[in-house]
Amino acid sequence: MNDSKALTDYLGTFIQELVFNGVEQVVISPGSRSTPFALLFTEHPSIKTWINIDERSAAFFALGLAKASTKPVVLLCTSGTAAANYYPAIIEATYSRVPLIVLTADRPHELRDVGAPQAINQLDLYGKYSKWFVEMGIPENSPGMLQYVKMVAARSVATSLSSPAGVVHLNFPFREPLVPNFEQLNWGLVNGRKNICASTSSVMSSEMIDILLEASRCERGIIVCGSHDQGGFPHAVVRLANMLGFPILADPLSQLRSGSHDMSSVIDCYDTILKSEKAFSALKPDVIIRFGAMPVSKVLTQFISQSLAKYHIVIDSDPDYRDPTLRANYFFHVNEHSFCDEAARILRDVETTTDYLTLWKKLNKLVKPVLLSELKEYMFEGDVIRTLAPVLENGTSLFVGNSMPIRDLDTFYFTNDKDVKIYANRGANGIDGIISTALGCSAHNERLILIVGDITFYHDLNGLLMSKLYNLPITIVIVNNNGGGIFSFLPQSKEKKHFEEVFGTPTNLDYEKVVDMYGGVFHRVKDWKEYQMAIKNSLDMNQLVVVEVPTENRDENVILHRNLWNEAVELVDQYLMEQLT
Amino acid sequence: MNDSKALTDYLGTFIQELVFNGVEQVVISPGSRSTPFALLFTEHPSIKTWINIDERSAAFFALGLAKASTKPVVLLCTSGTAAANYYPAIIEATYSRVPLIVLTADRPHELRDVGAPQAINQLDLYGKYSKWFVEMGIPENSPGMLQYVKMVAARSVATSLSSPAGVVHLNFPFREPLVPNFEQLNWGLVNGRKNICASTSSVMSSEMIDILLEASRCERGIIVCGSHDQGGFPHAVVRLANMLGFPILADPLSQLRSGSHDMSSVIDCYDTILKSEKAFSALKPDVIIRFGAMPVSKVLTQFISQSLAKYHIVIDSDPDYRDPTLRANYFFHVNEHSFCDEAARILRDVETTTDYLTLWKKLNKLVKPVLLSELKEYMFEGDVIRTLAPVLENGTSLFVGNSMPIRDLDTFYFTNDKDVKIYANRGANGIDGIISTALGCSAHNERLILIVGDITFYHDLNGLLMSKLYNLPITIVIVNNNGGGIFSFLPQSKEKKHFEEVFGTPTNLDYEKVVDMYGGVFHRVKDWKEYQMAIKNSLDMNQLVVVEVPTENRDENVILHRNLWNEAVELVDQYLMEQLT
Repeated sequence: MNDSKALTDYLGTFIQELVFNGVEQVVISPGSRSTPFALLFTEHPSIKTWINIDERSAAFFALGLAKASTKPVVLLCTSGTAAANYYPAIIEATYSRVPLIVLTADRPHELRDVGAPQAINQLDLYGKYSKWFVEMGIPENSPGMLQYVKMVAARSVATSLSSPAGVVHLNFPFREPLVPNFEQLNWGLVNGRKNICASTSSVMSSEMIDILLEASRCERGIIVCGSHDQGGFPHAVVRLANMLGFPILADPLSQLRSGSHDMSSVIDCYDTILKSEKAFSALKPDVIIRFGAMPVSKVLTQFISQSLAKYHIVIDSDPDYRDPTLRANYFFHVNEHSFCDEAARILRDVETTTDYLTLWKKLNKLVKPVLLSELKEYMFEGDVIRTLAPVLENGTSLFVGNSMPIRDLDTFYFTNDKDVKIYANRGANGIDGIISTALGCSAHNERLILIVGDITFYHDLNGLLMSKLYNLPITIVIVNNNGGGIFSFLPQSKEKKHFEEVFGTPTNLDYEKVVDMYGGVFHRVKDWKEYQMAIKNSLDMNQLVVVEVPTENRDENVILHRNLWNEAVELVDQYLMEQLT
Repeated sequence: MNDSKALTDYLGTFIQELVFNGVEQVVISPGSRSTPFALLFTEHPSIKTWINIDERSAAFFALGLAKASTKPVVLLCTSGTAAANYYPAIIEATYSRVPLIVLTADRPHELRDVGAPQAINQLDLYGKYSKWFVEMGIPENSPGMLQYVKMVAARSVATSLSSPAGVVHLNFPFREPLVPNFEQLNWGLVNGRKNICASTSSVMSSEMIDILLEASRCERGIIVCGSHDQGGFPHAVVRLANMLGFPILADPLSQLRSGSHDMSSVIDCYDTILKSEKAFSALKPDVIIRFGAMPVSKVLTQFISQSLAKYHIVIDSDPDYRDPTLRANYFFHVNEHSFCDEAARILRDVETTTDYLTLWKKLNKLVKPVLLSELKEYMFEGDVIRTLAPVLENGTSLFVGNSMPIRDLDTFYFTNDKDVKIYANRGANGIDGIISTALGCSAHNERLILIVGDITFYHDLNGLLMSKLYNLPITIVIVNNNGGGIFSFLPQSKEKKHFEEVFGTPTNLDYEKVVDMYGGVFHRVKDWKEYQMAIKNSLDMNQLVVVEVPTENRDENVILHRNLWNEAVELVDQYLMEQLT
């Protein structure tokens, strides 16, 4: 893409978002490739532009503007060595902690590294001296790309200002035509709403409090808790939820599904409920308050993304921007626990309605018995979790592998009052090194159960040596469907050609032998009773115990999952239809 | 360090070396930290210095000087943003392929990142735009450091000029005092000899030919062949050696110890011979011609390093500088095979003497029977190689693990006329991924034998899956001394405290089980006859066969090695004494 209209919408949206976030001044050094930016900045009614021919002087001049105004100043130049002239001022800005946003225009990808004139490699041009570097996409005006460019604009301002203040570098590749379409320009139209306000302090700013108060007046709000581990947080967030009358959609890694806190507003079947299209639209929230990492549930992520909630607030004690939906319009960089406590204090006297919360609770109650219903004949993978829960004891920890186990945990692990801690590697969601990480955890949690698929188990077989060398006790459950089960849930499974070879990847390994080599005890269980017994016994054996669950074939597993979900979705749909009539 | 004398010697040596390598002009922008360089460059009788106050202009001015003279020009500035002002010209030089050598003065390490004035992070300041970046050591005038600074100077010139020409950046940290000691300055003294002349063409330059002709007039020369694999090279290098009357010290990975080429001047026991101090000094060469990677033998590396040969020439078809001894004074970047052919043509009529060659041959003949003598009672690790050689057949390949196996190969694998190819991972010498690499090779070499220690085998156990999945045949010999054997040869073995836990690292694993899991055949052999049978049979089985050799304990293994070497060294010493009297 990159026609005149797309260019104008894309950059117009970007500029307007900068303005909304407090940018007032732009220092421009003339050039050709930067033409669309130069013209649009100059056109904007509330931006003061300065023209400075020498980029080195321009950058130092912008540094002065930013130093005195204590607001980020934008620098704009064309492609080539022009950008390198900013380097001295950028280094000075870094060490003197002055916020600058550097916009460099660039050739599009197809004209790079092929000897095109004035085309140099501008990626990471300032190395360690830009706090954030972004290679932007080619201008497009699809809703997704406009959301993206707004996010980048707002985040650039926040990042340039966040402690310690410094330099953000955005590199914009442009194709010709380079002239914007002034006739179709509408600053008001291309801007939808204000993105992001960040604070790095540990207490809420007055701006945050104002936003929270406004949000609390909405009737339909949800709290989403992803992977997060902070002592006392479950109690604090539950109190806040009760005060707001919002349900808590609690990811299995939120540590909210097990414990001694009040569970009355904790929803644990949202992943199944939201598989109903009717529920998906009927439950649309106006407020989303999100803690922790993005939840495991894909449909919940879609729900968050498509809700277009008026207040979509992400609370994160680290100055990070974990929101792949690109929909969050507020980031509060504040300690999560403190936020809940302070918010509860602020909202003490707010009145709330509970219809929306009641609906969520009702649907959750409707769905759970279906997910709990027995499937006698099968070694169904979901039962690895369903039959585990009853035998879990206080003080046991669970480490859950990625790919299918974490998803089955999401579907089949329900609220309970046990003291059970749940771990996973969800920073980058890899299947590598899971046994080793779990063994590291087991050094601090004597009764630890690891649940992994057979591919994950194979991947870190060598990790078992640590159990042997240091007598680290662990119970490992292998959900063995002889290959990569998750791919059977994905679209490529419909293409049978090469599927088994490239995605199924059966290893046909008999793990009993390798477990024996590492001095472990191995159980291959035939039914769930044997499985439960093996788990129970293992926790008192104080050594490496591997419990292998040979499950149904992978295709069958998908069908069994879908049957359960379909049954539940039918109940949800039926209930919602009755409500409407 | 960094007193006035050390500073002067170090920088004087550096500058003199630049001059010897063709640098004529330096553009200086004044500053404090760069004082010693500024004064010494100005003092040098054959350097033209230009003073340019503005670093941006200075860099573009230097660019013009270099463009017109087609010789590298040196740029000098002080610490801080001064260096960043060079950036535009550096980028222009990169794209227009103009050689520049940028010297930036810097604060010493203890004054970095602690808010000291004018101290910025100058490491890799120009990112992808410097072809070579070096953070220099603090000035010292030990012989090793002077050798180092000369090497860097010479290499900077060569690298800035090598195709495509461009920018080299050297960052020099200086402590105070910053003023050199002119009284002790002696350009002639601090310089010993000219380092390095590089050519990237595939034919020899006239300069190379002159040097080679001079070198060929010396009586004592050796050819050292490290890891190298190029069809026809063995025949070519042997012809050259015979013409020069030089012995070839052939590393096991040189592919020179096996094959159909003339072996008459190939020395294969140099590692043992040079363990004799008498031989080490009696064999001191005047010429070293080196091909391939650095040899495995540590004592040979020391021999090369300490010989201070008048002509130490490294032939490398890639523009690289593989010489950790820092002693090579000529790098010929020219195709190895072509070099041998062309050199042989040039040297057709050169007369040579053979006394030196004869001595090497005599010692080699003396030593070999000792290394071949039988040790009946033991499962001695050296026998893994000694007893393997007789059963090797034409067309078999050998992959040798790092750590001990490659060293035992060096000691115990002797010249033979078989067609045996030898592989190893000697780029970074890791023990990781050896099984996988060997299996990759086995896909192209059906009869492949891998020899590894048990730790290396454990490290890549998972790699065995590929053999099972793709039916890749391989014979793996595990030299199992239950732990890391090489550490017993190193100084830390004398410190018994924690040694076994931290370096010995016994795993006590029974690999039969895991080999069984991967569908392989496993032999744990009791004696060398059984070992030879197992190997022989395995090569016709067309599958994964693991032959485990449980060896003597690790301490004992060191003693057995040393006994053999001592016996051989005694013979060498005795012979050399007789010769002298």
